Amino acid sequence: MRGERDVVHLATILRGDEAHLVVRLDAYMVDVTRAARLPRWSGQGLPLSLKRLVDAFAAGDPGPMEAVRRLVEAARAGEHDELIEADAPSIVWLPPLVPSKMIAIGLNYWDHCREQHVEPPRQPVLFPKWPNALNAHRRPIVLPEGSTQVDFEAELAVIVGRRCKGLPAERALEAVFGYTTFNDVTARDFQKGDGQWGRGKSQDTFAPVGPWVATADEIADPQALRIACRVNGVTYQASTTAEMIFPVRELIAFIARGITLLPGDLIATGTPHGVGVYRTPQVFLRSGDQVEVEIERIGRLVNPVVAPGEAGMLELPSRWPL
Amino acid sequence: MRGERDVVHLATILRGDEAHLVVRLDAYMVDVTRAARLPRWSGQGLPLSLKRLVDAFAAGDPGPMEAVRRLVEAARAGEHDELIEADAPSIVWLPPLVPSKMIAIGLNYWDHCREQHVEPPRQPVLFPKWPNALNAHRRPIVLPEGSTQVDFEAELAVIVGRRCKGLPAERALEAVFGYTTFNDVTARDFQKGDGQWGRGKSQDTFAPVGPWVATADEIADPQALRIACRVNGVTYQASTTAEMIFPVRELIAFIARGITLLPGDLIATGTPHGVGVYRTPQVFLRSGDQVEVEIERIGRLVNPVVAPGEAGMLELPSRWPL
Repeated sequence: MRGERDVVHLATILRGDEAHLVVRLDAYMVDVTRAARLPRWSGQGLPLSLKRLVDAFAAGDPGPMEAVRRLVEAARAGEHDELIEADAPSIVWLPPLVPSKMIAIGLNYWDHCREQHVEPPRQPVLFPKWPNALNAHRRPIVLPEGSTQVDFEAELAVIVGRRCKGLPAERALEAVFGYTTFNDVTARDFQKGDGQWGRGKSQDTFAPVGPWVATADEIADPQALRIACRVNGVTYQASTTAEMIFPVRELIAFIARGITLLPGDLIATGTPHGVGVYRTPQVFLRSGDQVEVEIERIGRLVNPVVAPGEAGMLELPSRWPL
Repeated sequence: MRGERDVVHLATILRGDEAHLVVRLDAYMVDVTRAARLPRWSGQGLPLSLKRLVDAFAAGDPGPMEAVRRLVEAARAGEHDELIEADAPSIVWLPPLVPSKMIAIGLNYWDHCREQHVEPPRQPVLFPKWPNALNAHRRPIVLPEGSTQVDFEAELAVIVGRRCKGLPAERALEAVFGYTTFNDVTARDFQKGDGQWGRGKSQDTFAPVGPWVATADEIADPQALRIACRVNGVTYQASTTAEMIFPVRELIAFIARGITLLPGDLIATGTPHGVGVYRTPQVFLRSGDQVEVEIERIGRLVNPVVAPGEAGMLELPSRWPL
């Protein structure tokens, strides 16, 4: 890991009616989108959105990321006019970007297979988080009508950085733009009743992601990260990505055998042991709960839980500058 | 059914580097996107794309569809300067639009449950066609590496016309913009080996759709349509949408209990009996085959089958005018 000062964490927040890319500076953040439009920074290649930064990565253009690093250094030196408190309750968080697809992986931790007494799969098991499920930090997880078994699943998510198909596992990490925190919220009753998992995994708001994306160069080994989930401050999941059966590089290579991955796509890499359904007694999310996913070096994703009808699908702003 | 002259069938084709909306006129088509830019038609509300027409439907604005009907009448009266042969081999077909999500339904025909000796499900079973699978009329279905059991599934697909969540089945057909033909191409070996169906159903090119969208007002009863699948001219599937266990209205209402449907979303409603895997002997697609899905009053979707590596994911044009 490089020095703390070098770590770049990126997020997307709502300002006015527009999505803005921000970069973290200790307890503060700097608005990259706004800076890009200031006379001082215009023409220096600052990206207007995380998607644009990912597209530059895909194109092999380091310019926009270098501009972000210059902006951070300038802000650290007191040469930038606005710092935003990262913990301010007034911040409206958004997903870091809108993936063209979200592919999630089931049964990918040794400890999670043991807790449910199933054999580890011989190869990765894929299921969908449809885009209606997309959700963000601090935004509510809405309990769906008809489910009494909504569960949490802390997951490391990969933000794909290059179009890829048919690449070997040995080179698959080169296709990663960054890593973020993900909660693979699941209606267990829907999941088990249906057999196919898509519906139970893709109810509106069931894919909280973010807030922080750590760029891949900050995460020397994605298989050596502590990962935890807490509900109302009580730790239910506490493991490490070393427990993954199929590491990130193998997941990417396996999916991309026949499914083209595009820049910005999200892969949720599975959850460790400790989920609510396999506990005695069982633990399920209730209205009023607060659920947190935390991953070492990446960040902490917090969501309140609300009753059916109190909120709906996350509304994305119409203005997402490219 | 209204008179043949009133039937509106819409499709999207590539012209230059841009997607163009076209409307059928007997054996010809009229380019709606091009017409909208002609002096004679500008300002008359012609839509530039099918998505724009769907968005107008969602907004309750009949103007763009009325403009399309006026264009058809003008062309029929010889008052339009260009007609395109609908069967011309030079036409590059595109999907009618790019859905935000494609949700497919498993085991939804009585005759398909009987052929595999399974009990009909008590409620609809959902699975994903991820967007990398999106494909179009006359474009190749690519056999994936590692599968020897690629099967065809003729399906009626619904193009959602309004944002909906929590609507009763009795009103669900009001949310339909139109209907189209769909081939739910499936790698049976991947599907059965994984247990979860997403990977076997979502290999690149496995979701051919179109070419024609019949608007909902042309289809008085979506549960009374003959549906067929042929490979190299041999009919393997021949049934009717009356065999659906859960009719279109119930599928929409069931999905939208907790999954918000957006204008342009696609629901593939399941396949009838006759698929290759349950035949004796089994029939699977091979390089050089031509597979056709045909649905009464809607149209015929034809795709060649090619070997791995001969083609990749369908490339969409960057210019898709809104």
